[in-house]
Amino acid sequence: MEIMWMTMEDVRKKQHAGVPVIVPFGTVEQHGSHLPLSTDTLQAYSIAVLAGSATGALVTPPVHYGQCSSTRNHPGTITISGDTLRALAVDIVQSLAGQGFAHIVLFSGHAGRIHMAALREAAERCVREEPGLKLAVICDLDLVKEVSADLLATPGDGHAGEIETSRMMHLYPEKVKEPPPEEYPSFPPGRVVPDPERYWPGGVWGNPQAADGEKGKLIVERSAEALARIVQSLIED
Amino acid sequence: MEIMWMTMEDVRKKQHAGVPVIVPFGTVEQHGSHLPLSTDTLQAYSIAVLAGSATGALVTPPVHYGQCSSTRNHPGTITISGDTLRALAVDIVQSLAGQGFAHIVLFSGHAGRIHMAALREAAERCVREEPGLKLAVICDLDLVKEVSADLLATPGDGHAGEIETSRMMHLYPEKVKEPPPEEYPSFPPGRVVPDPERYWPGGVWGNPQAADGEKGKLIVERSAEALARIVQSLIED
Amino acid sequence: MEIMWMTMEDVRKKQHAGVPVIVPFGTVEQHGSHLPLSTDTLQAYSIAVLAGSATGALVTPPVHYGQCSSTRNHPGTITISGDTLRALAVDIVQSLAGQGFAHIVLFSGHAGRIHMAALREAAERCVREEPGLKLAVICDLDLVKEVSADLLATPGDGHAGEIETSRMMHLYPEKVKEPPPEEYPSFPPGRVVPDPERYWPGGVWGNPQAADGEKGKLIVERSAEALARIVQSLIED
Amino acid sequence: MEIMWMTMEDVRKKQHAGVPVIVPFGTVEQHGSHLPLSTDTLQAYSIAVLAGSATGALVTPPVHYGQCSSTRNHPGTITISGDTLRALAVDIVQSLAGQGFAHIVLFSGHAGRIHMAALREAAERCVREEPGLKLAVICDLDLVKEVSADLLATPGDGHAGEIETSRMMHLYPEKVKEPPPEEYPSFPPGRVVPDPERYWPGGVWGNPQAADGEKGKLIVERSAEALARIVQSLIED
Amino acid sequence: MEIMWMTMEDVRKKQHAGVPVIVPFGTVEQHGSHLPLSTDTLQAYSIAVLAGSATGALVTPPVHYGQCSSTRNHPGTITISGDTLRALAVDIVQSLAGQGFAHIVLFSGHAGRIHMAALREAAERCVREEPGLKLAVICDLDLVKEVSADLLATPGDGHAGEIETSRMMHLYPEKVKEPPPEEYPSFPPGRVVPDPERYWPGGVWGNPQAADGEKGKLIVERSAEALARIVQSLIED
Amino acid sequence: MEIMWMTMEDVRKKQHAGVPVIVPFGTVEQHGSHLPLSTDTLQAYSIAVLAGSATGALVTPPVHYGQCSSTRNHPGTITISGDTLRALAVDIVQSLAGQGFAHIVLFSGHAGRIHMAALREAAERCVREEPGLKLAVICDLDLVKEVSADLLATPGDGHAGEIETSRMMHLYPEKVKEPPPEEYPSFPPGRVVPDPERYWPGGVWGNPQAADGEKGKLIVERSAEALARIVQSLIED
Repeated sequence: MEIMWMTMEDVRKKQHAGVPVIVPFGTVEQHGSHLPLSTDTLQAYSIAVLAGSATGALVTPPVHYGQCSSTRNHPGTITISGDTLRALAVDIVQSLAGQGFAHIVLFSGHAGRIHMAALREAAERCVREEPGLKLAVICDLDLVKEVSADLLATPGDGHAGEIETSRMMHLYPEKVKEPPPEEYPSFPPGRVVPDPERYWPGGVWGNPQAADGEKGKLIVERSAEALARIVQSLIED
Repeated sequence: MEIMWMTMEDVRKKQHAGVPVIVPFGTVEQHGSHLPLSTDTLQAYSIAVLAGSATGALVTPPVHYGQCSSTRNHPGTITISGDTLRALAVDIVQSLAGQGFAHIVLFSGHAGRIHMAALREAAERCVREEPGLKLAVICDLDLVKEVSADLLATPGDGHAGEIETSRMMHLYPEKVKEPPPEEYPSFPPGRVVPDPERYWPGGVWGNPQAADGEKGKLIVERSAEALARIVQSLIED
Repeated sequence: MEIMWMTMEDVRKKQHAGVPVIVPFGTVEQHGSHLPLSTDTLQAYSIAVLAGSATGALVTPPVHYGQCSSTRNHPGTITISGDTLRALAVDIVQSLAGQGFAHIVLFSGHAGRIHMAALREAAERCVREEPGLKLAVICDLDLVKEVSADLLATPGDGHAGEIETSRMMHLYPEKVKEPPPEEYPSFPPGRVVPDPERYWPGGVWGNPQAADGEKGKLIVERSAEALARIVQSLIED
Repeated sequence: MEIMWMTMEDVRKKQHAGVPVIVPFGTVEQHGSHLPLSTDTLQAYSIAVLAGSATGALVTPPVHYGQCSSTRNHPGTITISGDTLRALAVDIVQSLAGQGFAHIVLFSGHAGRIHMAALREAAERCVREEPGLKLAVICDLDLVKEVSADLLATPGDGHAGEIETSRMMHLYPEKVKEPPPEEYPSFPPGRVVPDPERYWPGGVWGNPQAADGEKGKLIVERSAEALARIVQSLIED
Repeated sequence: MEIMWMTMEDVRKKQHAGVPVIVPFGTVEQHGSHLPLSTDTLQAYSIAVLAGSATGALVTPPVHYGQCSSTRNHPGTITISGDTLRALAVDIVQSLAGQGFAHIVLFSGHAGRIHMAALREAAERCVREEPGLKLAVICDLDLVKEVSADLLATPGDGHAGEIETSRMMHLYPEKVKEPPPEEYPSFPPGRVVPDPERYWPGGVWGNPQAADGEKGKLIVERSAEALARIVQSLIED
Repeated sequence: MEIMWMTMEDVRKKQHAGVPVIVPFGTVEQHGSHLPLSTDTLQAYSIAVLAGSATGALVTPPVHYGQCSSTRNHPGTITISGDTLRALAVDIVQSLAGQGFAHIVLFSGHAGRIHMAALREAAERCVREEPGLKLAVICDLDLVKEVSADLLATPGDGHAGEIETSRMMHLYPEKVKEPPPEEYPSFPPGRVVPDPERYWPGGVWGNPQAADGEKGKLIVERSAEALARIVQSLIED
């Protein structure tokens, strides 16, 4: 299922079967003092692979780089521009389409507004040029909130908080450091500032200390099931 | 206050005073069977002018064209691409900055995600190149929801619904036709479809029949006050 | 006729009738000490609406922003780049074409060479991609000179001079301030200078003091008739 | 003087002397049945070299490709887009500026409006980024009309007509074929058509039969003198 | 050393130390019937991590997508354009530079000419804008050939041949399938064809059957040492 | 054969005959202290004309400007960006294709890696959009090395060395100055430096003193024959 490990001949067998493809998008972005910089990517890839197993979807290697706004100056964040992300998403979709794949899900582990809009805009461009494509653009955080509300202790939890810390405790327990205290940054309303890190020293949005691995396991599973349902609906459309 | 009607000499007097500038962004977009296609622009411009009067901010002529996704195929919508909108917003900000204006609010009457992200992305580009600029990007609908929750009968009201119909009844009563019934479109989750109009025949999101002009007047006033507060905070920053 | 005020249903009725569309382009540009910054836009829009009435053409909301070269540093001018203007014109034409409109006139109230060339270049791009489109790109100043030569006292009258001042006296008398003396700037031949305002302090080209509102009325009417003839020829082609 | 034939060491000696540089722009474009496709380039280069001799200006190799609109479908025309021409002009100017040359004339043998506007737009971009540059953009046809009015029999002579045929008879007599009859094409006003060649079968604008080589010699000399004066004024500025 | 697994605080400690960074570039590209599609990426990443350990260089997550020409239509290849790859490389370098890293190696596991030129062109752009950056662009295949000539049985071995198969046998033995026979494709000289796969059915260049894991281990180690020397020279420059 | 000197009518006769076209690409680039800056262009054009005579191929005017990396700061080099070169090559091919020419060879007198990759990338873009085009991209230096190995005394001869000096002695003997001593520059491995001229003072790669005009004549002839064979194979494909 993981294209990364498949050979040309493995793909050739899948090419003529209306097989769906999931493209995981992540970031290299600060995730507090306790989570790895590739947290978005790692989660998205894991969930995509689970959804792939459940549906027969192929999963491409992750796009490790995404567009980061308010974290762009924190140590460790490597951001790309919206233009680059759009170009990348368009190229990947068009290359997959050129290989005969027509059911494609862009699945993002990062929820930034410019980042998500870039993926949607790229998808609209692809659909305009090839109206036969069945495309979906899914934001992991939206999915989580739909399916895991009952599991969460933290209202408005987000970046590097209860959800992400729990999931990483389940997926990569040895990579999670001591969770820092909760943080709910507040930016001047509507402002686009040159130094967003000033308003967000800890780089956490929510409560990482409310996290645990068991919860993480459930969230991962439910996210994967939700993603699988979307993949399924794409094929049945 | 309205740059449209000012002369060169009028602006010259304002140039050296740290005067803020509001740039209203709208769309040409279907707004149901009852509201004019420039509804987004007309509201944004009116509110910007009120906020300008309250704060001394100049108001540029509106950008009449915006990026429309789900309404793009409905009759009457004229959409521009995200790339064009970004370029336009960057050029306007940089031209204003070149004239010595350093406090600029991009105020959008349209709330589309790609559209709003385009304005934010443009603003980030400007701030990266000129960190001294004080920029804000404000979505009218966000503002309304903050300040008018108590006035509204329709939960989740949006495009061409109770809010916009009420405001247009106040601002341009002779231009509002018979409000159609409420509509809450549902798109396949995450899908980027070539024919969004199929899922949204009436082009309304919310309940236009819950609208009235008195309510519209209050919403307009409160929106303008909220915008004025943002302008004010920009100057005081 | 004015798309700005039409509803989705109003446009739907027009979509299947080979109805022509006029897109007015203006600028935010200094027009001497006596005329509003949106003079180009206001004239172009008024003339387009008159021509629309005469021919049944729809008139889109004006594009308020254009490309300004020699006035770009004068107080009040807000210029956009040629790239942005081309993108905007292409997007608008393609969006109108996607709505089924095939007879489109880009009508510019600004006569700058780069600005006009940008519109023509955009139109050529659209025609190359959709050879079935009937497109015209019209410069208001060319039109005026063709039809109003006998009315004018000022040879070589142009920007903010006799013609524009007369028309604005007719269209928006209360917005016209005391006309300044005549001015005929002279730039170093062929030079592209960083400070064109140095050679053009008053921002006027021609003689605003030769203007009067009666003359303005006639010029506006003749311009509209000339534009209507072009619209008509486009349909009959 | 001709950079084409100079060595690195020849240029090194010129680099520190405020030496002006002329960059000749041409086209590969039909010029009737009697003139070579590179007529624009050949004339521009010859005149540039004469002006270079008179002023000490260096002359770069010609840019053989330009933007052609109404001749683009005639046999033999090879057109490039406005975007490409702008990029090319910007790169050449910036590369020359990087070598220490600060007085640069872009001299075009082609007078197309989009083509000329592209060169001007490129020059404005360069000046905005390096305000110290002294740039001029000169259209050969404008120059000719200024200095040779008394020599010409054909009012409104232009493309491949009396002027160009005369000059080519002087410069490359063996390359000029039997001049065709005069032609004054008329395009539908303002229209941007997919097939301009339909309105301009002979590809001539003016009267090639009024040409002779003696006149051509005079026009070439006067053009070169006029260009030399512009180069001179650039240095003295 | 692997940025993927580091936290914000881990990077913060490294930011002020002149620490070099290696950015591994790969592809999703057919590698015969026996090697995984991410072979280029997997090798480059492994070698980068080894070189990072030896030098203290940080290693970013890999860029999984690259530009593929002659394999672009083979099953499984997902190619991006040169424009996208350039944009991506520029963004990553500039983001790293913005974080204070000034010694950066772009290390590519793919040797395609357009792909490598894209990385070099991106690097030149970065250096032109920030001349203080110390940048190197290294092609893995060039490195291998320099340091492993004595180990190889196959002259002119390349894509999915003896070298890559040996290395993958060492790095991911369980992912290597039965090596196919040797293949030395021949394309029509200089041609740019729409169907390069026609000339290269097996997708192998060289002799995968000459591969073994011991050899692969040596090649990997020597490649890593060679890369480490380049990193070292960059710091000492 | 030389399009530069042909008329519209000359081309019209060739348009319907499947006639191949050669487009010569050069540079304005330092070539040591002894060779003209347009050496790449002059050689490429001469060889293209010979190959054109032998095959009936048309030869376009040369593209005088190319992308130069390591020579970009030497006196006299005028470089354009890879983006510009790609755009130029795409435009020329598409314009020729629009004129009915389907067999096109891009023949470059400059061998820089980014330059050559730009031409190949442009050609791939053209072929992707018009798969019926028969395109080849040929690097003169590759051709020479194939056909002239037996003539050359200098192993690894390249830029401004034995080959180019010999050819220029044959083609333009009066333009060749005293050949400087041999030079084999060495750049820090993989580095992209802001000052490549520091490592390459003389601007020569190889041994210009091993050059002579007789050898040059043979190399030119063999290069032209090799190019003619490629043109021929393109037609027969």
